[in-house]
Amino acid sequence: MNGLVEISKHIRLVRTMFNPEKRKRIPLSEPLLYGNEKEWVLRCLESNWVSSSGPFVEQFEDEIAQSVNAPHKKSVVTASGTAALHLALLTAGVKPGELVLVPTLTFIATVNAINYVGAEPLFFGSDSRLCMDLNSLEEFLQNECRKEGAHFVHKSSSRRISAVMPVHVLGFTVDVFRLRSLFTDSSVAILEDAAESMGSLVKSPITNDWVTSGTIGDLGCYSFNGNKIITSGGGGSIVGNNQEWLKRCKYLANQAKDDALFFEHHSVGYNYRMTSLEAALGIAQLKNLSTSIERRTRIHLQYRNHLKNADNVEVIEGLSTEQPNYWLTAVRIKNWNLDQLRSGIFKLQELGIEARPVWTLNHTQAPYRKCATFKPQSSEADYPKILCIPSSSNLTEEEVGFVADNVVRIAAH
Amino acid sequence: MNGLVEISKHIRLVRTMFNPEKRKRIPLSEPLLYGNEKEWVLRCLESNWVSSSGPFVEQFEDEIAQSVNAPHKKSVVTASGTAALHLALLTAGVKPGELVLVPTLTFIATVNAINYVGAEPLFFGSDSRLCMDLNSLEEFLQNECRKEGAHFVHKSSSRRISAVMPVHVLGFTVDVFRLRSLFTDSSVAILEDAAESMGSLVKSPITNDWVTSGTIGDLGCYSFNGNKIITSGGGGSIVGNNQEWLKRCKYLANQAKDDALFFEHHSVGYNYRMTSLEAALGIAQLKNLSTSIERRTRIHLQYRNHLKNADNVEVIEGLSTEQPNYWLTAVRIKNWNLDQLRSGIFKLQELGIEARPVWTLNHTQAPYRKCATFKPQSSEADYPKILCIPSSSNLTEEEVGFVADNVVRIAAH
Repeated sequence: MNGLVEISKHIRLVRTMFNPEKRKRIPLSEPLLYGNEKEWVLRCLESNWVSSSGPFVEQFEDEIAQSVNAPHKKSVVTASGTAALHLALLTAGVKPGELVLVPTLTFIATVNAINYVGAEPLFFGSDSRLCMDLNSLEEFLQNECRKEGAHFVHKSSSRRISAVMPVHVLGFTVDVFRLRSLFTDSSVAILEDAAESMGSLVKSPITNDWVTSGTIGDLGCYSFNGNKIITSGGGGSIVGNNQEWLKRCKYLANQAKDDALFFEHHSVGYNYRMTSLEAALGIAQLKNLSTSIERRTRIHLQYRNHLKNADNVEVIEGLSTEQPNYWLTAVRIKNWNLDQLRSGIFKLQELGIEARPVWTLNHTQAPYRKCATFKPQSSEADYPKILCIPSSSNLTEEEVGFVADNVVRIAAH
Repeated sequence: MNGLVEISKHIRLVRTMFNPEKRKRIPLSEPLLYGNEKEWVLRCLESNWVSSSGPFVEQFEDEIAQSVNAPHKKSVVTASGTAALHLALLTAGVKPGELVLVPTLTFIATVNAINYVGAEPLFFGSDSRLCMDLNSLEEFLQNECRKEGAHFVHKSSSRRISAVMPVHVLGFTVDVFRLRSLFTDSSVAILEDAAESMGSLVKSPITNDWVTSGTIGDLGCYSFNGNKIITSGGGGSIVGNNQEWLKRCKYLANQAKDDALFFEHHSVGYNYRMTSLEAALGIAQLKNLSTSIERRTRIHLQYRNHLKNADNVEVIEGLSTEQPNYWLTAVRIKNWNLDQLRSGIFKLQELGIEARPVWTLNHTQAPYRKCATFKPQSSEADYPKILCIPSSSNLTEEEVGFVADNVVRIAAH
């Protein structure tokens, strides 16, 4: 880097640091509206179909299914990604006291959904891309479980394992093809938490085709929360290979109405419907999903370029068998500990940079501290080093540079 | 009624019956948009605050609190009325295995919320306005319960009664003042299900003031679903006298974030947030709440007038101590049984009239058949006679007349 560039950067940094009023806040991940949202939302209002009935919900379901090339061309939209996960666990028949295998490194919603059905999470560590470590999962199944017919039973607790929830963290993708092979001919449901990975692709080892994350397991759940790559305000959706389960998700999301006129209900249902207004916004946003992925990919590449010579800072990258949607770019600061992470984050926040750690590991959260784990040490070791950095679809290269420079500066202390 | 009017009515009926293409469907209760919704929703889109953060949610919460004159000037908005009920039960500390007293005549959402927290409903019958029968509740507490300190314990099951959920059915109001006096100095939480009674008033026997339903118990829950008197697409809100509980509702509705930056969670939370888009719609609709109540009151009075001479058909009316919002008008057809109810409804549906029974009684629904009851016979006897009739805020007097005439005609067979 030549001296002049270095000096001009330094001036910019200093100027920003000492002129707080000139600082623009750079959010982690905010919604980007492309302009067509107005038209769709107005169309919805004009139709009077503002609630959960009507054509917008169905259209959004159809277009999601098309967009991710969903099995059976079907998706079910829900009030939130959390609702989608809860419905997936319910329809998979996960029972109180059974075990659900899940990474400890994920937003707590994944784990709360397990709690809602009365089951117990069993936590795993993560690999280089922050996703559930399938090597230790394989080891766990071989050494810590016994097979009873189609069922996996955890030897030490004698509990049945009823589901596994791979989480596609930050848009990276768990190798669900490999995961599936670990559970061949078993009763264990594979429920993908694809909240962060709408549009991420995984290479099928069978066909060599690129397949969309969320569509490989029995069910897969997306989120359209405001911080996600596209948004419907709030909301989620479910896709998957098990068509009967998808039907049941739809049924349970609408208070399990067996007879809508006479209000007969054979099951305990939920109000997990998406509204038409949200669906209309979602339809508009979905039309720009590929643009948003392109933009976030470009931002990721810009960060990679800006940080390529930083000794201490490593951009977290995917594997050759995946095309992440790059929802969030994260870096690993190799020598950081928890104190450095905390102080680094506060320093960046002071500069208007909304950087964040990944989530406090779930096996250390109060409600789940007593739950079983298997080799969570990989996540424990990685957690203090990981910093999620601003990745909104409308981030400018200048902002990327500003964030990258400050991350390097703060990582050096 | 004079002969000419009679003949002209008859001609109109016959014409409609034999010209199906001329029939306009008359829905039970559809949203009425007043025009200001566009402005608010566009304002929301333009602000980029489309998700669950931002000023629209707070403004809606403030304006709801103001509109119902809520204790502490506070309300918490939620993703649905069901979510509001669930949060109310959670924050009231209702535990698995405990009993919650509830009318059998209500939409199943009330009862499902009890199921979500693992508690057991105990079902009561209803009075002349379809609301929980407080006389039998009083009898139940005297004869079937014992007091252990502040706790009511159900003698035959030895279970503790932890909450009572009066439901303000169709906009009529349970006398929560009387209810409260039955539970003086007890640990039983009073959680009003005011989903259908936004804006209904009850006369306080203490001050003689008119008080809004939902604000008298410990917590009260409204719904803004599409079929309600005003709508935010979907959504609900919670108000009430227990300020600590309201804070906890807000906390639990947002995944129980104790530290939003470091994602620390000391409790199991939920994603029960309302989106800004819904809040913006709700703000616009709330401005017309009193107009909607006036319109539905006028419709109710028109029905009353049209049906005043019908021998067999009685419009269900409130007491002198309440001002219902008249969300839905319902009639009681005195000699009807279940078969007549079913065939009557189908005949009305064929004419494009969306008439409906009240809800299949919850103590007869598959998930709750084994739950305890106390004198549900009043609801059992009433259920086959009750017909909910179209009550949308934009119903014309001609439509009211058409519905009323056909109800009379069909009730006579």
